[in-house]
Amino acid sequence: MATSFLNDLMQTLGDRGRSLMGRSRDLARSGDLPELGEALLSRRGEASGVALARTLLDSYAGAPLAARLGFLTALADRFGPDRDLVDKAVAEYRRDPSGRAVSALQEAAEPRRQELIRRLNLAPGGTAALVRMRAELLSHLGSRPDLVEVDRDFVHLFSSWFNRGFLVLRPIDWTTPANILEKIIRYEAVHAIESWDDLRSRLQPADRRCYAFFHPQLVDEPLIFVEVALTSGMSGAIATLLDPTRRPIAARDATTAIFYSISNTQGGLAGVSFGHFLIKQVADELRRELPNLRTFATLSPVPGFAAWLAGELALPHSRFFNDEARATLQGLDQAGWHIDPARRETLRRAILPVAATYFLKAKTPTGRPLDPVARFHLGNGARLEALNVLGDVSAKGMRQSHGLMVNYCYDLDEIERNHESYAEKGEVVASSAIRRLIRADIAPPPELVSAS
Amino acid sequence: MATSFLNDLMQTLGDRGRSLMGRSRDLARSGDLPELGEALLSRRGEASGVALARTLLDSYAGAPLAARLGFLTALADRFGPDRDLVDKAVAEYRRDPSGRAVSALQEAAEPRRQELIRRLNLAPGGTAALVRMRAELLSHLGSRPDLVEVDRDFVHLFSSWFNRGFLVLRPIDWTTPANILEKIIRYEAVHAIESWDDLRSRLQPADRRCYAFFHPQLVDEPLIFVEVALTSGMSGAIATLLDPTRRPIAARDATTAIFYSISNTQGGLAGVSFGHFLIKQVADELRRELPNLRTFATLSPVPGFAAWLAGELALPHSRFFNDEARATLQGLDQAGWHIDPARRETLRRAILPVAATYFLKAKTPTGRPLDPVARFHLGNGARLEALNVLGDVSAKGMRQSHGLMVNYCYDLDEIERNHESYAEKGEVVASSAIRRLIRADIAPPPELVSAS
Amino acid sequence: MATSFLNDLMQTLGDRGRSLMGRSRDLARSGDLPELGEALLSRRGEASGVALARTLLDSYAGAPLAARLGFLTALADRFGPDRDLVDKAVAEYRRDPSGRAVSALQEAAEPRRQELIRRLNLAPGGTAALVRMRAELLSHLGSRPDLVEVDRDFVHLFSSWFNRGFLVLRPIDWTTPANILEKIIRYEAVHAIESWDDLRSRLQPADRRCYAFFHPQLVDEPLIFVEVALTSGMSGAIATLLDPTRRPIAARDATTAIFYSISNTQGGLAGVSFGHFLIKQVADELRRELPNLRTFATLSPVPGFAAWLAGELALPHSRFFNDEARATLQGLDQAGWHIDPARRETLRRAILPVAATYFLKAKTPTGRPLDPVARFHLGNGARLEALNVLGDVSAKGMRQSHGLMVNYCYDLDEIERNHESYAEKGEVVASSAIRRLIRADIAPPPELVSAS
Amino acid sequence: MATSFLNDLMQTLGDRGRSLMGRSRDLARSGDLPELGEALLSRRGEASGVALARTLLDSYAGAPLAARLGFLTALADRFGPDRDLVDKAVAEYRRDPSGRAVSALQEAAEPRRQELIRRLNLAPGGTAALVRMRAELLSHLGSRPDLVEVDRDFVHLFSSWFNRGFLVLRPIDWTTPANILEKIIRYEAVHAIESWDDLRSRLQPADRRCYAFFHPQLVDEPLIFVEVALTSGMSGAIATLLDPTRRPIAARDATTAIFYSISNTQGGLAGVSFGHFLIKQVADELRRELPNLRTFATLSPVPGFAAWLAGELALPHSRFFNDEARATLQGLDQAGWHIDPARRETLRRAILPVAATYFLKAKTPTGRPLDPVARFHLGNGARLEALNVLGDVSAKGMRQSHGLMVNYCYDLDEIERNHESYAEKGEVVASSAIRRLIRADIAPPPELVSAS
Repeated sequence: MATSFLNDLMQTLGDRGRSLMGRSRDLARSGDLPELGEALLSRRGEASGVALARTLLDSYAGAPLAARLGFLTALADRFGPDRDLVDKAVAEYRRDPSGRAVSALQEAAEPRRQELIRRLNLAPGGTAALVRMRAELLSHLGSRPDLVEVDRDFVHLFSSWFNRGFLVLRPIDWTTPANILEKIIRYEAVHAIESWDDLRSRLQPADRRCYAFFHPQLVDEPLIFVEVALTSGMSGAIATLLDPTRRPIAARDATTAIFYSISNTQGGLAGVSFGHFLIKQVADELRRELPNLRTFATLSPVPGFAAWLAGELALPHSRFFNDEARATLQGLDQAGWHIDPARRETLRRAILPVAATYFLKAKTPTGRPLDPVARFHLGNGARLEALNVLGDVSAKGMRQSHGLMVNYCYDLDEIERNHESYAEKGEVVASSAIRRLIRADIAPPPELVSAS
Repeated sequence: MATSFLNDLMQTLGDRGRSLMGRSRDLARSGDLPELGEALLSRRGEASGVALARTLLDSYAGAPLAARLGFLTALADRFGPDRDLVDKAVAEYRRDPSGRAVSALQEAAEPRRQELIRRLNLAPGGTAALVRMRAELLSHLGSRPDLVEVDRDFVHLFSSWFNRGFLVLRPIDWTTPANILEKIIRYEAVHAIESWDDLRSRLQPADRRCYAFFHPQLVDEPLIFVEVALTSGMSGAIATLLDPTRRPIAARDATTAIFYSISNTQGGLAGVSFGHFLIKQVADELRRELPNLRTFATLSPVPGFAAWLAGELALPHSRFFNDEARATLQGLDQAGWHIDPARRETLRRAILPVAATYFLKAKTPTGRPLDPVARFHLGNGARLEALNVLGDVSAKGMRQSHGLMVNYCYDLDEIERNHESYAEKGEVVASSAIRRLIRADIAPPPELVSAS
Repeated sequence: MATSFLNDLMQTLGDRGRSLMGRSRDLARSGDLPELGEALLSRRGEASGVALARTLLDSYAGAPLAARLGFLTALADRFGPDRDLVDKAVAEYRRDPSGRAVSALQEAAEPRRQELIRRLNLAPGGTAALVRMRAELLSHLGSRPDLVEVDRDFVHLFSSWFNRGFLVLRPIDWTTPANILEKIIRYEAVHAIESWDDLRSRLQPADRRCYAFFHPQLVDEPLIFVEVALTSGMSGAIATLLDPTRRPIAARDATTAIFYSISNTQGGLAGVSFGHFLIKQVADELRRELPNLRTFATLSPVPGFAAWLAGELALPHSRFFNDEARATLQGLDQAGWHIDPARRETLRRAILPVAATYFLKAKTPTGRPLDPVARFHLGNGARLEALNVLGDVSAKGMRQSHGLMVNYCYDLDEIERNHESYAEKGEVVASSAIRRLIRADIAPPPELVSAS
Repeated sequence: MATSFLNDLMQTLGDRGRSLMGRSRDLARSGDLPELGEALLSRRGEASGVALARTLLDSYAGAPLAARLGFLTALADRFGPDRDLVDKAVAEYRRDPSGRAVSALQEAAEPRRQELIRRLNLAPGGTAALVRMRAELLSHLGSRPDLVEVDRDFVHLFSSWFNRGFLVLRPIDWTTPANILEKIIRYEAVHAIESWDDLRSRLQPADRRCYAFFHPQLVDEPLIFVEVALTSGMSGAIATLLDPTRRPIAARDATTAIFYSISNTQGGLAGVSFGHFLIKQVADELRRELPNLRTFATLSPVPGFAAWLAGELALPHSRFFNDEARATLQGLDQAGWHIDPARRETLRRAILPVAATYFLKAKTPTGRPLDPVARFHLGNGARLEALNVLGDVSAKGMRQSHGLMVNYCYDLDEIERNHESYAEKGEVVASSAIRRLIRADIAPPPELVSAS
């Protein structure tokens, strides 16, 4: 890890500009955040931007909730677009709809907060502070629809700053600094890491890999990371994959890379996506290092399955299965079904076609699959490859999907085509084995056909 | 220098995505740059953005001039804003001028090329390629006013990407990698560096410093750099400062830091300014390292002085000096005046008030000083401190300013105030010595008084 | 941490020379370690030293115990000095005792194993392998006195290779790679580190520091490390120092640095001392960083106290205390004495003079203090500063020293003088408070006076 | 380059211990170097070794020649072995020639200066200072045979410290720090580098490589470096190889690596050889990176050829050629012979057998080839592959070898065998083409046959 270099930078950044302070001290003391914002956008801001930005961000961080919310509100109204300018630009455009007039329109319509946020980023540590500010903003969005436009501007700027061209892929392993590793423990969102020993068992064996994207401005923060197991075949059960007593294989002998956990770490970057870049770049890195690898696939949870199934079972009649299947599926409510061999087999057979249906037939109003993880991988151009009943028998796994896990395959020769089919026609690319599971006697719901 | 780390990154970036290629190979072979641009903006671009961006940039770099100009033209028209969307958004705004409508207006008015440029930045080395593309664009602007809007979008995006928060200050010294140092030699724009020995004499002595801003995406390219001499007092002559036979003083004994050369290196970043951040941060760094430093000043050229003076002398009557002064100043045309002691003294006396006038009275139509270097430093909040006749007796110095050099002082307690006076009232803050040079009998030109 | 650089090196070293192998493959297969040693010392060894050294060390590592012991035995006899050469050199010296003859004597008397060990160090990872080999050798020394000479040669060479000029001091903190940190946990020998959280509480707070010496050839191995607490005064109790609920102070406010744990990590480097260099350099580093620090002291265990006291109490009459004291000290045998306030105070008063006696009067046959930790610090020039009864009430602390801990002070103005007094006269430099504790009525044992 | 890390280390090392000074200040002021040496070996030296070592080395560096020579002389006599101890150890050995007695003999015979030099190495920068001290010592050896034993001890210790296991191979390229590169320019001993542009032409093209060994204690000093050209066949002329107008080939297309320049940089390390390790490791590195490489050879000068030939021509009759050849060879004295086509061809034919004779028949008194470069490569196990008349037509090349250059081949399958033949029998392994050049009618000189 070049963390020491990056830490040095950060330190440098952190020390900068402090001496310029002082001159805006009175304003800072007053703690009037919107006024500090005005100062930063003013002439004075041009001269002392670094110090003023720092003051505002520090004041924000130390202010009580009401003051912080007040500042976010000011971003929405006081620092919105200048309406007079907009009106003038609209009038001008109607008079002469030239290219210049469109430009002027765009400039006039740009909210003042965009420039304010850009100037706040002048402060050392500014990017991290702005990411935190947006995380707070997101927590208010439900009750404060007037802040939606502010959020849109954050996303616009973050998309530019966190452009994938600025992200850096780094392997995470047992020689990574502890302050980074503790964040891996903290942020792992799919299969919790219980302890440092557990972490080591995911990083140190010869058949394990972990990669994260970093941004030069957030050096101690992995933005997103993926955990990979190198195996000699497709893997359908997470417990087997993570079994601490298994014998690691030599990396060179592996034919398959299983991406079994992908975690975003920064709530404040929600909607600024880099997950698909991560998967593809890690696949590239691994292929380069290990030419024997032929299959790149995930072992993924199915977070929406149990809830959807419960909903269908609560209906008098499901479009997706007949009464016989329904009766069998009721058995899922009885604890321990997956331990009893007979019940397990019966239910396994019952689940498979229903799961296939869930992925291929059940849709959102806009014609996408119901499952969010499915939308992510299918949107990236992956193929739904296999259904693994009882792939995850942890409490969480049983609760959210009756233990179901699935594999998505990233096949480079297909990605572009799959992505287009999915994006344009909502088509779910799945292996023939899964497609065959769909019973012929269940017609697709007609309203969804028309919706897609 | 952490260049090896950064080089590694760059290498990594450079290798990425290559394997995704192929699928867009036919398009790439066709070399139709605008079509590649459309592909990158399309669904396919979402799936294979890195590879497509790389293909387009590589194709652009290898294309003949006509094809390159064709692509720039396409950026201007084909990838401009979608007029239908704009018209709709304008209509909607007029119907209901809500915040949402303003947002929609801004989005609609955004030219498609902005997203295209953002996606081009996905490619490894994309940022550097885009900076070069804009440098080429700038070279055509004079004859192709239709490209002005394209340039505006480049500046908009570059201002966001090269936000000062993303720039990293690094010392440049004799342990800096040679590939960086050769760029210092190449780009030095003020006082040319003749050889590696000359370079060493600017970097290695105990009383010399050099700093540059780097961007994480352009790791081998100093974006701007400043050369500093540590001295025991104000310095008025560049030859003395750079005298290779001088005895260096110990850095701890210095009281003054003279910024004697500031050079931008990337033509493609013209108008994306970071010069004033550089000066202030270097001053901060130096003050922290060397607490004895009390004065931070430049030794600057006066590139517009000779041309302005020639213009005034060509008029029948100058508003700025009387006929006696005019007669004396004609002596500047005689080669060698600065070598003859008597002529030198006469002309020195004559130049001083005229130079003071040049800085304080001669103005652009918008009321700013004529001299571009003066506009830069005064705009940063510096004070015009001293006039040094024959500060630069090199051929270039004699030609552009009859040897005149000046010092601008960066006094932290004044910067904010100076900047405001200048920005709001066009006021030139100058030392009292310089102000006293303005002869009482020359009234300021009335039209400029009203203009300011 | 520059570990990545060092890891790269290690990797490089590890890969080297492999291709040269082959040619000595048959010998390697035979696994005859002494024969491999002969080959390495032969002509062939000059040509293929790296590969042969690697083969021998790998074979040794993979060989069964008997074969390994056989090789160590061969080092003792087969690779001892060449007796004919010694005899010739002795004869020559007796004929003409010139400088040249002394040189020849030294060369002849050098055992062949010295050159063999030097050549083994050619292998990548050779140094580490040799350190491990000596650790194994040490484990046999008790039962195999014939290996003592071999050990002497290891120490001779290691002293040269691990010369303090080649050691590198590095801070250990929470940004240190996990593979280094786990060794800190594993090797901490004084106050065990229970978990990663415990480790963090020793590294991350503002008033804690940790430093280690590294060697360029053993990059992932801290050779010795010291843990430091920054405090506002002398510290007498380890539990208080390590209290996880304490409020850290700002480093700049500290006046005192307490070295509360020093651990060697490499058994194979026993007798190659760098502890005193570590303490002095860390004191230097800290003084430079934190000018407010005025006192550098340890908080040290007294591992020999309880055993010595038990021995004295077992005698009919101790030279060191009278019968009244003896009666009181018997109370130490009753568990829980340190919890009962009255007994605690009585015993505290009784222990103090006896402890002072233990340090100042009880001596080894060669006139040194009995306590090994005391010998280390006093030998470094430290001063015995304070006795802390119940400074360590852990089970280990109560068992080895009835809870006694002591402070040794490193006072730069005294170190040289103290060291000389100690080294030449066996004098124990102690604070006057401790010296006053020695009862006037107990005369020093006369045989020790004469021995010193 | 990880130079910044190493520089940090160096800085750290440089700052260390300074605070311990003072206490030995008076001694330091006196400047009595031998007395400082005694202090460093004394008790005081144990306590304040770092500071005392630094003082002595600084004092030495600043002392006048006479004082420095006085110290070297003191190393020879005052710090020689303790004769009483030697006598006692000899007596003891004669009484009982046990292993212990041999050990004691070796210890007694060890000159005190060895420990003194080891302690001097405690100082920051100590290793570099000692290497310089030995360089000075070497310059006196001719006139001061009494210093030979001192030199022997330097070599003994340096061989241990600069054990190849401690050396680090680093590529030198155009991203290497300038302070390292200027040493490459300065130290290039075979084909002078004229300028930084010349340097760049040896480092930057795709078909050029340069590698150096570094030692962790001499971080800014390449100890030895080799320049390599990647070619598509054997290369016989240096001018062609270095032709600045040539078109570089892609590294992957090269089949041959030509080592055309190997330079040692540290006079003070003469006799501590690492040249053969460098060649073999660079060959390994290149083979790993570029699997197409099949031939590893040098293009080497023949520094002794012209002098030897002149000597033979000065004799009335040479054992090595007949009178006809002699007459032809006289033509070498006429300037410009190599420009005239006819003369050139005649002389080329005459030179070839004589050159073959020079390498295969002309021997030193100990039966080795006369040419020092030949001794180096043949001793490493290389094969004399080709003779290139007019391979180097520079003034230096014509002067030292009438333009002759040769190729030595490093063939891994032969190295060990070649080295043994050479080391044991003085056999010169040469290609059959060269062996055929030896005229049948010239019998080998009989005395050399018996000598080998």
